[in-house]
Formats: sequence, structure tokens, C-alpha cells
Amino acid sequence: MGILIKNALTVLPEGDKDVIREANVFIEGQRITGIDSEPAGFSADKVIDGRDRLVIPGLINCHTHSYMAFMRNIADDLSFMDWLFGRIDPIEQKMTDEDAYWGAMLAIIEMMKSGTTCFNDMQMNIHQTTRAVRETGMRAVICRGLVGNGDDEGGRMRINQTLEEKEAFADCDRLTFRFGPHAPYTCDSAYMRIVADEADKYGMGIHVHLSESVSEVQQIRSKYSCSPIEMADKNGLFDRPCIAAHCVQVDDNDIEIMARKGVSVVTNPASNMKLGNGFAPIQKMLDAGINVCLGTDGAASNNSLNMFHELSLLTLIHKGTGRTPQCVSAEEGFRIATINGAKALGLESETGSIEVGKKADLAILDLNNPSLQPRNNLLAGLCYSANGSEVDTVIIDGKVTMEGRRLLTIDESLVYNKVNAIVEKMK
Amino acid sequence: MGILIKNALTVLPEGDKDVIREANVFIEGQRITGIDSEPAGFSADKVIDGRDRLVIPGLINCHTHSYMAFMRNIADDLSFMDWLFGRIDPIEQKMTDEDAYWGAMLAIIEMMKSGTTCFNDMQMNIHQTTRAVRETGMRAVICRGLVGNGDDEGGRMRINQTLEEKEAFADCDRLTFRFGPHAPYTCDSAYMRIVADEADKYGMGIHVHLSESVSEVQQIRSKYSCSPIEMADKNGLFDRPCIAAHCVQVDDNDIEIMARKGVSVVTNPASNMKLGNGFAPIQKMLDAGINVCLGTDGAASNNSLNMFHELSLLTLIHKGTGRTPQCVSAEEGFRIATINGAKALGLESETGSIEVGKKADLAILDLNNPSLQPRNNLLAGLCYSANGSEVDTVIIDGKVTMEGRRLLTIDESLVYNKVNAIVEKMK
Repeated sequence: MGILIKNALTVLPEGDKDVIREANVFIEGQRITGIDSEPAGFSADKVIDGRDRLVIPGLINCHTHSYMAFMRNIADDLSFMDWLFGRIDPIEQKMTDEDAYWGAMLAIIEMMKSGTTCFNDMQMNIHQTTRAVRETGMRAVICRGLVGNGDDEGGRMRINQTLEEKEAFADCDRLTFRFGPHAPYTCDSAYMRIVADEADKYGMGIHVHLSESVSEVQQIRSKYSCSPIEMADKNGLFDRPCIAAHCVQVDDNDIEIMARKGVSVVTNPASNMKLGNGFAPIQKMLDAGINVCLGTDGAASNNSLNMFHELSLLTLIHKGTGRTPQCVSAEEGFRIATINGAKALGLESETGSIEVGKKADLAILDLNNPSLQPRNNLLAGLCYSANGSEVDTVIIDGKVTMEGRRLLTIDESLVYNKVNAIVEKMK
Repeated sequence: MGILIKNALTVLPEGDKDVIREANVFIEGQRITGIDSEPAGFSADKVIDGRDRLVIPGLINCHTHSYMAFMRNIADDLSFMDWLFGRIDPIEQKMTDEDAYWGAMLAIIEMMKSGTTCFNDMQMNIHQTTRAVRETGMRAVICRGLVGNGDDEGGRMRINQTLEEKEAFADCDRLTFRFGPHAPYTCDSAYMRIVADEADKYGMGIHVHLSESVSEVQQIRSKYSCSPIEMADKNGLFDRPCIAAHCVQVDDNDIEIMARKGVSVVTNPASNMKLGNGFAPIQKMLDAGINVCLGTDGAASNNSLNMFHELSLLTLIHKGTGRTPQCVSAEEGFRIATINGAKALGLESETGSIEVGKKADLAILDLNNPSLQPRNNLLAGLCYSANGSEVDTVIIDGKVTMEGRRLLTIDESLVYNKVNAIVEKMK
């Protein structure tokens, strides 16, 4: 099937920058096969009129727990301990596979409707986020959350589940898999080493939470006499392609290690503020050459999975903490939310920008919204004034998954009924 | 005309808290005449089905410059001096009355579509924001921005323009007026005193920018040997009902003065971050008993006039700066964005909450949006997950101004064409 997006303003890479100019985008099968010039033999089954439209690469949410979407607005304004042990843990104890599946479906609705076309997920219940992704046409990297100790059968089992799941979903090339050692305070040193060795054996990447809070850093320092970043490095996690979520409480040495080892840092500004953890030193990380990408974290601690919201936070808060209006510019922010995410996930040849040969993962915004009027610097608009509801059409893997804000692969009402029923059941 | 909003979840005040419960809301003429129990002789010309709807008091944007909306995304990631003198000033020099009017129209579109029903404006061109408000059915407090010195004819003229404009728009009771001395760095001490005396003479309130940046505080300290807050106080501004915008760079003494004098502080988190000014000590002000309200500032420095975005910033950033997840709770935040704003504007008996006898200023949200699903704590949802696009219907002064997201009093396309033409002309 051929799709032509005709004469739309389009965000296109030019060297290491993004420019916005009017273009024709040609899509055949899963891929973008032409920009401006029509590919030989192209035949359009569908023409999308680009007038008053802005085409952007789909946003990439590099850290979330999509099953948690049914816990949105369920535990707010609480200390971390009350939040986790008082509210979230008891819910997770009662959560079934079906609950996790419907949570993931809700998360995918929210992400798709706000222009996210790929996400990196840490799940608890295997086959649940995974099947939601397969059914809905989303793209995702899936990690089974791993917790355990070196001599722990459960820890071994969870590693194997990752591999089993990878096998079970091998038919869907929108899915890739990573090992997801949860955090230094839930995985001991020996277990981290086992995970790193298995990742090496199977050619897998890593997705881990690191240095989220002051108390985590204190706990790891007192147990291992090093920082969580050093602990992860010593146990080999950084010898594999590694995405480290949070990295709020890091020092210059930590930053130097991550830069040297090519670790990608996912920053989660809303979650870090909401749980009282503070602000990650993003400008320092960018200056050190770290590949910074952006994530929402789960809906229990954000409470939004809307990457436009996260992008606005990313491009605002560091100007505030650094007292410098040039910190994390719109141009940098937008790349952090797109191509940097693709790089972090090892998918930079597949997605993250609108280029010939890449998968067609994109969102089309309706410019007839006050937030994007008048048409001054639209790249600034994407960061500072858009709210995500301007997204009209979404294409993932060459398929239209949303059109006129109507989702084509998901029954929204059914999902809303299901998640409300879960909440009732949990009461 | 009678309007009944039937069986909708509704945010209602209960003591000094807000609760959400199902209610019937009866509106006759401009006012709410019944909640739950039908007023004698009520006849419904219009019934709004409240299923899957949340009714909230309209949000109150307590500090903006609406004419600036055509400058949205025009000057970003610049130092304050480059922003103001390099980009904004030259545009304002070229701006005509018509340009200011269309800017205000765009601002009103954006505010109405995101649930704001009242705003406090500082304008440059008299009769422009004012007539946009009169035509569109909005509610606003209008201040002509006053700059000048004690012996300055221009300063005198601008004071008189405020009074003339008040007279010219006396027919529209959705409009009230205040004196708007711009800031301690644009009004000298003698002029501030003149404005305060005139405010006293005519029974007017004050709207002023104070202590926005470190450089302002330094400049005023070097000129007057006191802080901007002390300078305003000494010249009588705080002896009138006073709204002070920004108050980012304030110390404990400043906070004590404002608390004692009953000054309302409008916080503008996006603008303060974007221009690199930092974070206002909001928790300290709340602890001191100051009436804190919320504003977006103008679209040249935010760049959004969406109060849901501002509310999310307000309820997130102070948890980050204070490393305390209990700072500025959802409950506090929502009151800051509604009833506290009404108090600041002297309109608390007219608007800011859904109560019998008040004007019917409210927004109706469609709960069938992923951001508000499932229906856990919806007050948290308004702060942490909603983005403003959930607003389906708006009622101001008893009249429906938006329904099904269609504005009934404004031709959106016309306004978009006009503001884009202004941008072209300015190039």
C-alpha cells in the first residue's frame, strides 16, 4: 500500500539539526521510500492532504511501565515510601495478567493519541504489554523487570522468561527485547553480573533504573562503597548497550563513566519532581556527550504518558535550575524526544526521524489549533506550546493507526470500561 | 434562559476544600441558581447530559498580556536582554491597535478552549483586549500597562487612559479594571506613589510585576536601597488590593510584608523558568498565608496560555525544588487556579467556584479521554494528567461559549488568518 503525504510542513533532519520545510513524503509497505521525489513505480492508495499540517517523526518514550496506566491518579502527594509500599505494592500484589494487559492498552491509547510511536517498557507480567503492542500496531522494546539475588531461582526464572517471550513474539518485528534488571536496590551485585553475562551471551541490551533518589545512593554506597552507577558498571551492565533511567542523583564521576561507556540516559522529569527526587543534571550530561533521551515513567508517578508534556518539562525546568534560558533548547529537546531515543534503543536505522529507508513512524499535527498559531517557530511550538492534542493522524510501521483522532486499531470505550472495572475490583 | 447540567460529576466547595460528587447544576440568566435542588419556577431551555462529564469552575488566569499571543514561538532560548530588546521590543514598536486586538482574540481562543473563563490582563493598546473580551463573552480584569516617572506627562496620560477605558466599557459587567504600574524598573518611586494615590481616589486595585529577576532586585536595591517589594510597599501600592506578578526573587522579609499587607501573588512558573529566572518560593508563601494564584504570563515568554499546563507545572516543580512530594498538592493547586484567583481579583463573590448565587463560569470536561481514565482521583487528574483538551463545553456568565469544542462566539479561522498576516507583515 502506498501513502503520499502531500505538501505538508515536515520536520526533516539536516546534518545534526532538524529543519521544517514543505515536503512530499512517500510511504510504501513499512517504509518511507521517498521524500520530495516520487519513487519509481509508486502508486498512492491514500493521499493525505498536507495543508495546515505538520509532519513529525513519532515521539519515542524511552522509559515507562505501561501496565501501570490503570493506577493513574491513584496515589498522589505521598512520600515515596507511602506511595510505593502503602499504595502501589498492594495493588500490584492483586494485579492479574488481564489487569496488566488492559493497563497497557490504556497506556497505548494515551501514547498514540499524543504522537508517540515507540516506547521502551519494563513490565511485570510477561506476554501482556507485549500482546497489547502486537495487537495495536505500536512499536516497543519490552523488558521483563528482573529482581533477584545471585543464588535466587526466581531471578534465574525471570531471565528465562525474557528469552521465552522474545521467542514467543518473534513473528512481530515491531517488538524487540532487552533485559531489565530493575535497580541496584532490588538486584544484588551477583545477580547484576549474571544478567550482564546473559545479555552478552544472547546479544541483548539492558534497561535499568539507576540513581533515582538520594536514599538509593546512600543505600548502595553503604552496601558496596560505590555509587549505583559504579555498581552497575563494575558488574558489566555498561558493557552492553545500556539505557539507564532517571540518573537524578549523579556526580561528575558518574557522568564521566556513563559518557565513556556510551550509556544512554533516559530522563523522566515529571516523575522525578512528583516523587520529590529533584532534577537530573541534564545540561552537564549533554555537555559530557551522553546520549540523553526522554521518558514518562509509569502513570502511577507522572501521571501522564503524553510525551509533549514531558518535552515541555524537559525544555523548561533546566532553564529554571540553571538560571539560563539557553539550557536544553527546543532544537535539542525535540531531538532528545525522537532520534536520541531511537539511538538509545538501537533503532536509529529504523525510526526516530523522517528519512528515506526508515520505517514510517510519524505523527501529523493539525496546525489549526491555537497552541500552534501563528506559525512562527514550529519547533519551539512542539516544545513550549503544543499539548499533544494537536496530533490528528498517526502512522506506525507504514500503517495508519489513528486518523482524525480516531484510533483504528483499538476500541477506546472497551478499554475505559475495563480499567474502571479493575479499579472497582481493587477497592 | 435556563440551563440544567444533569447528573455530572462536579467539583464543589465544602468548607475550605473541594470535593467531587455527582450533582445537578441549575443556571438562570448569568447565575447558578441551584445545585441538586431545582429552584422554584426553573425551566430548562437546555439540558446538558452529565454522563461521563466533569464540571469544574472555570480556571482563572491571573497574569497575562493577551495581545502578545501573535508573538507565540517568536523568540525562544534567548537571554532576557536579547529576548526583550532584540526581539519583543522591536515588534511592539511596529504593533498597531488592530494587531493587538487580533493577538487578544487568539489568546481568548486558547484560554477558552482550555477551560479558562476569566483572566487578568496587562495591555499596551487600550480598547483592544477590552473589545475582544466584550465580543467573545469572556470575563476579564483589564489593566493598561503604566510606565513613567513622577514628572512625566506620558505617565499621567496612561493613568487617565485607564479611567477613560473603564468608562467606555461600563456597559459590560464582565469587565473590571485595575491600574497596572508595570514594574519598579519602569516606574519610578514618585510615579508609583501617584498611581497608588489615584487608585485610592478611584477605588481601583493594582496589578504590578515585582521581583521577577535577580537583575531587577539588584537594580532596585542599588537605586532605592530596598527590595522591589519594599519599594512597592513604601509607595502605597500594597494599601490597595494588589496583585503582584512573579515574586520569584523574594526573601523572608518580602514574604512577611506581602502576607501582612494581604497582597495576592500570581505565580507564573513556565515564564519564570523559560526566561531563566528560577522558581518562586511558593511553599513558603503558602505557609505564610499569602493568597497565591496562578497565571501564564504572555505567549512571548511561556509560550502557552493553557492553564492546565501551568497547573501541572505548579503542582510538580515545587515538589522537585523542595524534594518533597507533598509540596503544593493537587487540592491546593486546583484552588490556586480557581478560587484564589477570584479572591485576588476581588471577584470571589462572583466566580471561582460552583456555588448558588455566583455567576455561572464553568468548564465541562469529557472524561472519555485517556488522560482522565480510569476515574481514580479526578482532582489529581486535573493537575497531573489532564492537558486542557478534555474541555468540551464552556459556560461564561451563564452563556455557552463553547460546545463540543466548537467556539460559538469566535471565528477561529479568521483569527488564525489575521495573526499569520501580522507575522508576515512584521518580517
